[in-house]
Amino acid sequence: MAKEKNPSIKDLKLKTEIPKKKAPIWHEFYQGKYEGSLKCGVTSFEDFSIWYTPGVAEPCRRIANEPSLVFKYTNKWNNVAVISDGTRVLGLGDIGPEASLPVIEGKAVLFKYLGGVSAFPITLDTKDPDEIIETCLRIQPAFGGINLEDIAQPKCFYILDELRKKADIPVWHDDQQGTASVVMAGVINALKVVGKNLDDVIITQLGIGSAGTAVIRVLIKAGVPAGNIRVVDIVRGNPTILTSDMDLEKLFPYRGELLSKTNANMIKGSTKESLKDADVMISFTTPGPGVIKPEWISKMAKDSIVFPCANPIPEIWPWEAKKAGAKIVGTGRSDFENQVNNSLGFPGIFRGTLDVNATTITDEMAIAAAYAIAKTAEEKGLREDYIVPSMDEWELFINEAVAVGMKAIDQGIARAPKSEDELRERAKKLIGESRRQTEILMNKGWIKKPPEVKIN
Amino acid sequence: MAKEKNPSIKDLKLKTEIPKKKAPIWHEFYQGKYEGSLKCGVTSFEDFSIWYTPGVAEPCRRIANEPSLVFKYTNKWNNVAVISDGTRVLGLGDIGPEASLPVIEGKAVLFKYLGGVSAFPITLDTKDPDEIIETCLRIQPAFGGINLEDIAQPKCFYILDELRKKADIPVWHDDQQGTASVVMAGVINALKVVGKNLDDVIITQLGIGSAGTAVIRVLIKAGVPAGNIRVVDIVRGNPTILTSDMDLEKLFPYRGELLSKTNANMIKGSTKESLKDADVMISFTTPGPGVIKPEWISKMAKDSIVFPCANPIPEIWPWEAKKAGAKIVGTGRSDFENQVNNSLGFPGIFRGTLDVNATTITDEMAIAAAYAIAKTAEEKGLREDYIVPSMDEWELFINEAVAVGMKAIDQGIARAPKSEDELRERAKKLIGESRRQTEILMNKGWIKKPPEVKIN
Repeated sequence: MAKEKNPSIKDLKLKTEIPKKKAPIWHEFYQGKYEGSLKCGVTSFEDFSIWYTPGVAEPCRRIANEPSLVFKYTNKWNNVAVISDGTRVLGLGDIGPEASLPVIEGKAVLFKYLGGVSAFPITLDTKDPDEIIETCLRIQPAFGGINLEDIAQPKCFYILDELRKKADIPVWHDDQQGTASVVMAGVINALKVVGKNLDDVIITQLGIGSAGTAVIRVLIKAGVPAGNIRVVDIVRGNPTILTSDMDLEKLFPYRGELLSKTNANMIKGSTKESLKDADVMISFTTPGPGVIKPEWISKMAKDSIVFPCANPIPEIWPWEAKKAGAKIVGTGRSDFENQVNNSLGFPGIFRGTLDVNATTITDEMAIAAAYAIAKTAEEKGLREDYIVPSMDEWELFINEAVAVGMKAIDQGIARAPKSEDELRERAKKLIGESRRQTEILMNKGWIKKPPEVKIN
Repeated sequence: MAKEKNPSIKDLKLKTEIPKKKAPIWHEFYQGKYEGSLKCGVTSFEDFSIWYTPGVAEPCRRIANEPSLVFKYTNKWNNVAVISDGTRVLGLGDIGPEASLPVIEGKAVLFKYLGGVSAFPITLDTKDPDEIIETCLRIQPAFGGINLEDIAQPKCFYILDELRKKADIPVWHDDQQGTASVVMAGVINALKVVGKNLDDVIITQLGIGSAGTAVIRVLIKAGVPAGNIRVVDIVRGNPTILTSDMDLEKLFPYRGELLSKTNANMIKGSTKESLKDADVMISFTTPGPGVIKPEWISKMAKDSIVFPCANPIPEIWPWEAKKAGAKIVGTGRSDFENQVNNSLGFPGIFRGTLDVNATTITDEMAIAAAYAIAKTAEEKGLREDYIVPSMDEWELFINEAVAVGMKAIDQGIARAPKSEDELRERAKKLIGESRRQTEILMNKGWIKKPPEVKIN
């Protein structure tokens, strides 16, 4: 699980160039990473009289009489629409619905491979929040859930709130709740490694966009005193520590109430001041490197924990942060240690949600997932370079699915409750089968091996 | 290709019960016929740094600079949204978006298996034509085409017309153009079998809904004198032969002009009178049996051709029609001979359209497909019980793809023109691979065999 020890900085920098060089070549090779495919058998052409007319009329008729049968006779129970308007894609900003499609297809790949979820990538040709809401509501019948992705703030808060009120199926904005789950898991375990406690650390949150907002909301629900959190975002053109004497709701719509509870000591200043003596820094700002200065990190408390999470390049290189005194560093990148990226969360969280047919995904379900992520790593032994599991530890997603499903049952929002054992077996089966599908198709040469790319 | 010879009527009736009994059991067994799956390889978890962040940012950035690259780096080129509001499903009527999902998933199965097209089944929670149009336009970025399905008339005419004007990608209403292609192929070959010609037969069209309208429009474009066509539909509660002295546009919105050219001899009456001396009957009315009476068929011209196409049960049983004197009978069912069902058309038509990246699908492309269908059967030798190929003759779809792609190139609407050989190779590869995918997954036990169903 640990990445190779002590690589040189030169090697690490070179490593960051590899994905950038390989990606266009591999993307062109496959010309699409995700597609629709058959789940049902075809033993002869006679079978089409079952799968289509005339036989198919019978399941249709039964669903017309009893709508809940749609979960029995179709794939609705396992279909998730991955929806984006492309207005806030990775660190690329508003690149629109066509240019965001590679990311949204990639998300579908992770949903399927890691969570056994049949995700459909759908990018929208509208940026209007009400039209996005309307479109999601209209496509609901074919889906068991909706995953919103890479939608700019502040509209993303409004869109999620409205859809959670109006939709019949769970709607989730992964950049909010998903990121919060995984960051929270990282914070829980990093604090364990350095021997500090959630209820008496000072946490600095840089950036109060979709991720930052959900992170602090969830941390507070999980026991961090709100007053111990310092939040920095742009005010009148400059990074500024937010204080309750500002007109926070006007500056940061939908977040004023939450923000007003932070920073009890009314510390003022900029990023530099916000980090002084802080135990934890969580950052979702602009792609680096060079956005967070090493000298600011060196003023943090002893054994500091820093999560520079901007994509595709963190606000500060991990090796720079460590040299400046950080004890534990996590980023959003899969090619560095401690990837506190939402890829660790949503596949298992949706698996559990769909498996109990929950009506929504609550913050409590996200917190349950965070503890399941943290526990999965803890059982293997925490280290500075191992505070969260990596994507290849697939029991992670099973543990999350069970924790999330059980929490939904506790909260009375599961339409198809199951026992803990049943949930575990089911998640194991569905995720295992999904990985096996790809394995079989690769072994049989149907999915070709990606081409070699020479990196000079 | 021929179905078993001379089965007893009792056997035939029993056979029609089989799909109805098997379908709910098989549907429950698979719990969904279609899902999303990976097209790209996963050799190690490091690959996710290519398929998702950070690597994926590079193809995104390139598409943002050059939008047409979305066809190179994503699956857009091969994705088709299968859209329905569930207002006109098979013979079941307005059963809504949940109950229509089994049909729409089935359509996706046919798209993939027969045409190598990655179709996504999406049923909509709105019946408003403008909202349907709006939703299709909003989801365009992820798709290379849209297939409308099972939408009630007359709104389906308006929806298709508007979308063909406004969409950047081809939009097709299979119940209109698709059915017309296949029926036209059936008419061409049936006339050959009985030795009659397109330009001097009398054709009776029962039902002027989505299918009927497109059928007569396309037949006229292909050479049938409009005046030789008699159309029957409900006027003031009764089936009535339409005449140009009626207010046709008011009775049948969007179709008045077309209808006014039919029935040059101003024949009046009901279905019975419309069939007297007719050479061909094409019917898309209400599910039978018993809707069309044998005694009406017996008044048709010698060597009559009848296509009772209502789903799931034809307006008259084929054996009844034959006993009454029909020489050739075709229905929409895959379990009878001469299935003149649109399943023979759309998979190949979309394959050809997508392969040349055509901007739309013209009537001329649909007619080219009809001749390709007809020719495929003719090359094998036409018979009374073999006027169109069946779905298992997969060269059919390749022939259609080539004919449709070449026609689009001729018409100057192909964004990615190719040679005839290239088109043929490509269609063969894509359709062949698609079938192989299912085969591999079945052979390896990933897709289980459907359960045995005892029919008593």
